Amino acid sequence: MTVAGVGEFGLIDRVTARLAYGESCLLGPGDDAAVVAAPDGRVVASTDVLVEGRHFRRDWSGARDIGHRAAAANLADIAAMGATPTALLVALCIPAELDPTWAEELADGLGAEAALVGAGVVGGDMSASSVITIAVTALGDLAGRPPVVRSGARPGDVLALAGRTGWAGAGYTVLSRGFRTPRLLVEAYRRPEVPYSAGPEAARHGATAMIDVSDGLLADLGHVAKASGVAIDVTRDAFEVPRQMRDAAQALGVDPYSWILAGGEDHALAATFPAAATLPPGWRPIGRVAEGAGVTVDGAAYDGPTGWDHFRRAE
Amino acid sequence: MTVAGVGEFGLIDRVTARLAYGESCLLGPGDDAAVVAAPDGRVVASTDVLVEGRHFRRDWSGARDIGHRAAAANLADIAAMGATPTALLVALCIPAELDPTWAEELADGLGAEAALVGAGVVGGDMSASSVITIAVTALGDLAGRPPVVRSGARPGDVLALAGRTGWAGAGYTVLSRGFRTPRLLVEAYRRPEVPYSAGPEAARHGATAMIDVSDGLLADLGHVAKASGVAIDVTRDAFEVPRQMRDAAQALGVDPYSWILAGGEDHALAATFPAAATLPPGWRPIGRVAEGAGVTVDGAAYDGPTGWDHFRRAE
Repeated sequence: MTVAGVGEFGLIDRVTARLAYGESCLLGPGDDAAVVAAPDGRVVASTDVLVEGRHFRRDWSGARDIGHRAAAANLADIAAMGATPTALLVALCIPAELDPTWAEELADGLGAEAALVGAGVVGGDMSASSVITIAVTALGDLAGRPPVVRSGARPGDVLALAGRTGWAGAGYTVLSRGFRTPRLLVEAYRRPEVPYSAGPEAARHGATAMIDVSDGLLADLGHVAKASGVAIDVTRDAFEVPRQMRDAAQALGVDPYSWILAGGEDHALAATFPAAATLPPGWRPIGRVAEGAGVTVDGAAYDGPTGWDHFRRAE
Repeated sequence: MTVAGVGEFGLIDRVTARLAYGESCLLGPGDDAAVVAAPDGRVVASTDVLVEGRHFRRDWSGARDIGHRAAAANLADIAAMGATPTALLVALCIPAELDPTWAEELADGLGAEAALVGAGVVGGDMSASSVITIAVTALGDLAGRPPVVRSGARPGDVLALAGRTGWAGAGYTVLSRGFRTPRLLVEAYRRPEVPYSAGPEAARHGATAMIDVSDGLLADLGHVAKASGVAIDVTRDAFEVPRQMRDAAQALGVDPYSWILAGGEDHALAATFPAAATLPPGWRPIGRVAEGAGVTVDGAAYDGPTGWDHFRRAE
């Protein structure tokens, strides 16, 4: 059975039959467009694209895992604005000779990840292509709050983190060296565990700036520092190296802090709070904002890799 | 100069510097997500993807034209719900060796088409890929009206059309036979002229069902007939064959009605109205809705091609 065999509309029917649309969906797939509730009178919107061979490999991740990751990357962007995700739209490009089951399982993963936040897949498009490409748009609602942008960090603020960093990066290194274990790290790469509710929580607790850690902690903090016109210093001791990561780092000859400080795709949230603020549950302090520019670790420049450029490196 | 040379963030900076965001944009590119006004308390959202070699060819269309077409395909979906487009998000996948000027001109085309309806490109993502892929998400506002869906056509309704059909199909045939003229047809393929305001106008005048004609008139009316549980009959004489199209059809040995009735990508809007309704300006009657099922032309089955399946045919 191939995608060409079931045809464009046949595949759309098979995939949409498996989707739950979420409570914000007022009109789901099957028309020219979907209609989604935007009770706030504004809608938060973000698009991320995943390309086979660059953002995922089918021999490393199953279709369901890839669906989880594609949804997570986008839902995390919505959470990083302090908003609650309401819906996903998905443009899927796949080879005509692909088994339609792959697309169905991808949809299952997308839907399951969206369901974690009460959202659903409300629309999309499909096309044949020689390269599997998954473009996801996420929508969200701010519940009357201002968005938490990257430019709001102020000298004196506390830098805090929700979620974990380094796990997906470690899993990526494990897989790229040809291993399949430790399972915990590989699974972290395949399905990031995103602290979605920490985004709106941070907004309610007065976060001054926030970002989704997708490219690597130091690289993403660099965006905040630049947008805010401040310096950010990360405290290395704020991070404990978990046992499995330490063991894997030793076995692979890697500095585990290169994963923690520069590994992407865990989709932790990093935010700055006024010094006097009480950090909401799930957030822990990892550094400080000061006058100046750039990102440092314990007051010094970090000399490892810091991020990711999709036109210059590939998996 | 290549995309790899300027890098992912360099290219994003170059492209976003050229964009206007539109009046509904409350927060534009540069953060984790954009914020767009949704005064209605609901947002209409649609995603369409264009893949090189399937939806466009670089030797047939310039980057600016492709940008216009990519935006038009999505904005037309919003108009077909009776809504006014407010914003676009664009996921762009391009080869690392591409000249960045191509991406800049694509952005210019996307922005110029969006500007026709007062919308702008408010966000997006970029990645390297061996296949140029453009996934566009359009958002829109219903201004308090119910969406005009495909399932509302009722026996006795008048079938009406805004915009033109057959022009892009004729231009496609001209190009696929290796010609570059007649220029009027080729330009119609490169940049569809979409009657955007006719969508909300139809909604205000009581349209019972509406659809964007993207795959071909008869194929798209088939979706309306199926969703509404009705039969639709198209009156062939309602369509005049324009001189340039008649001449081209004769020269190429094509029945011009195969373009008019089955050619896609002009993004006309087809809608049904109660028999007693006054059609709004820009709309003309082209047929009738009756009890039954399926789409006919002058009461008989149409024996030409009717549509398009992206997994079965390619440009």
